[in-house]
Amino acid sequence: MEEKEIQEKIKQGRSFMKYDEMNNHVLSDQQLNKPQPALCKAPMRDNAIALPKNFEDLVIQEDFTSILLRRKSDRVYSQKDISLLQLSYLLYMSQGVKEIRGNNYATIRPAACGGARHEFETYLIISHVEELKSGRYHYLPMSHELEYLGEVEDLKETIDQSVVGQVWADRSSVMFYWSIIPYRCEWRYKFDAHRAALMDAGHVGQNLYLAATALHLGICTLASFDREFCDQCFELDGEEEFTVYVAAVGTL
Amino acid sequence: MEEKEIQEKIKQGRSFMKYDEMNNHVLSDQQLNKPQPALCKAPMRDNAIALPKNFEDLVIQEDFTSILLRRKSDRVYSQKDISLLQLSYLLYMSQGVKEIRGNNYATIRPAACGGARHEFETYLIISHVEELKSGRYHYLPMSHELEYLGEVEDLKETIDQSVVGQVWADRSSVMFYWSIIPYRCEWRYKFDAHRAALMDAGHVGQNLYLAATALHLGICTLASFDREFCDQCFELDGEEEFTVYVAAVGTL
Repeated sequence: MEEKEIQEKIKQGRSFMKYDEMNNHVLSDQQLNKPQPALCKAPMRDNAIALPKNFEDLVIQEDFTSILLRRKSDRVYSQKDISLLQLSYLLYMSQGVKEIRGNNYATIRPAACGGARHEFETYLIISHVEELKSGRYHYLPMSHELEYLGEVEDLKETIDQSVVGQVWADRSSVMFYWSIIPYRCEWRYKFDAHRAALMDAGHVGQNLYLAATALHLGICTLASFDREFCDQCFELDGEEEFTVYVAAVGTL
Repeated sequence: MEEKEIQEKIKQGRSFMKYDEMNNHVLSDQQLNKPQPALCKAPMRDNAIALPKNFEDLVIQEDFTSILLRRKSDRVYSQKDISLLQLSYLLYMSQGVKEIRGNNYATIRPAACGGARHEFETYLIISHVEELKSGRYHYLPMSHELEYLGEVEDLKETIDQSVVGQVWADRSSVMFYWSIIPYRCEWRYKFDAHRAALMDAGHVGQNLYLAATALHLGICTLASFDREFCDQCFELDGEEEFTVYVAAVGTL
């Protein structure tokens, strides 16, 4: 690429981080009374597995401040099983539904989200979780259940390919892949939706960092991954839903 | 705007959320051995105020899980003073420097950040903080100090204008304005920097949410603000540094 082209792309990137004033001059689909998109994706299979919610049994003796201060990225994992309750905690603290507002208007979750649109879905590749066979999963936040999407032929190879050869990730106990369904936030925010949605993805990622830290698990999030490969892995069309953020969680 | 133009902008926004493969074919300034940008902005004045770090005096009796579950956006504030120690805690948990790695290569902070670039600066408009006069401030994370940038003629009017008339914010005790210095992450990530930087801003925002929740303060972050006005307010040029995210923190 020529330097001029690179500079143009950097300029475009910076510009994307700024609010586009033109957005003020457009009515949103919400303002136009168009039907609201579903708060969550419908189940993809018919095999939901209930997740335990007895979080008080996870004895977290460390105080809040220490957990925040201890937060870091770990990329070396011991490949041991985490418990189903630990996985349940990680899912709930990042994307669990605490409350539904209005007539199915919004969900309230532990991670902040612009306009409470919660435009993400959570997918997993599980390698080492007690009581669960390895493979691909989808989280159902409304009912706090997991559905099993299918097996993965070569777990390590699939994880490595999904994160473009960051091979340390294949020793994780569970990989998180967050997709976005962009219309969920475009419906309200029009073409300013995407800027805020990336910040929302950060809110989710930071909560997973802290929840994993509280459980003394290792975690590292990844903004670099093979999006098309991840999309295929979880049967996403790449347009109305696509992968935006990834995290590895493993035992230390 | 015509529908076709709106759809084109939505397409561009979605596309921005995806990794641009062209980025693989460009060497970064880091790879080209170009000088690394400073980890933090130099002081803008010569009047630094030390911030207390006796966080153990902030008795947070609530456990980590409850704080995460209690997180929400509050927009009604009682306009009381917060203590300097509380403000110090909020600054440190969102953008404090815990450690410097390498030969001034990176800072490690409680909020996650891609490549530990920590491309943000923190500015404040203080209305109600014990021991501090109201006005504009800049946080110096390396020394954990605040510098006073100057007074604000009409606090409420300035805050209202900065967040385009979301007038509830003018009852905050302190407003946070995070800027980005984009070259700090472009140096390493080229034109893919901006996508990840927005997620990094989300990491910072979520930590502030949780830290304010732990202190039983109200908080609401805002992705909608008058960027040019905020930039002017803190003497940012709008190109090499500009506002990306805003938060109001107030007493309940």
